[in-house]
Amino acid sequence: MLDDPDIAAPGLEAGVRKLQKELSSGVVSLALLALVARAGEPLYGYQIAKELDSFGEGLPVKQGTLYPVLRSLESAGLVSSLVEPSVSGPPRRYYSVTEEGRQALTLWQGAWVRTREFVDAVLEGHRG
Amino acid sequence: MLDDPDIAAPGLEAGVRKLQKELSSGVVSLALLALVARAGEPLYGYQIAKELDSFGEGLPVKQGTLYPVLRSLESAGLVSSLVEPSVSGPPRRYYSVTEEGRQALTLWQGAWVRTREFVDAVLEGHRG
Repeated sequence: MLDDPDIAAPGLEAGVRKLQKELSSGVVSLALLALVARAGEPLYGYQIAKELDSFGEGLPVKQGTLYPVLRSLESAGLVSSLVEPSVSGPPRRYYSVTEEGRQALTLWQGAWVRTREFVDAVLEGHRG
Repeated sequence: MLDDPDIAAPGLEAGVRKLQKELSSGVVSLALLALVARAGEPLYGYQIAKELDSFGEGLPVKQGTLYPVLRSLESAGLVSSLVEPSVSGPPRRYYSVTEEGRQALTLWQGAWVRTREFVDAVLEGHRG
């Protein structure tokens, strides 16, 4: 893509990557908490990564960046984890949502919707 | 609000504030660039702040936090500014979008829409 002569100036590409990264950092926690909360069973990292991928490529999150986010959700008490042996490899850490995590998800979704509606209003020029 | 006995636990409130802040930091540049680009004339800081406010309270941005973002847009070449004397007070710095800023806005809007659609899909459980 960087070799494509039709792309915009390199500075523009760098700027949009920076914006994409800033947007992602705010929403990865929200997306992971939602995935873990909606799963009917505890999920381990690779399953969570595959789930995320199944929603498209809008938020390119590498598997390695999931773990710090999951750990941070766990230290905030929003998910809990349990290590279980695996027949096919090393033990796996399974994540479940906590009751506090469910409450947080409701609040976070509200924050997301407010932000989304505000940004869309500005972009479309629709005053409230 | 913090005295309201019905609110969720303080940890939950802190978490949602942190998320709100992360979400905001990603979108303030986008919102300001869009405002300056759509204005029919150069705008100074107070006008930009008032414009932002006119779109609601979804993105609580203090006026003091606008200036670092405007400066950063200017050093990226996306807006330019000009200081003009004011009859009613100190000189004002007026901001206009540059041609590169218009191109960036198109790219940034695309990044925003992709992120928004992805997050909404995850929250609503709609696979792509």
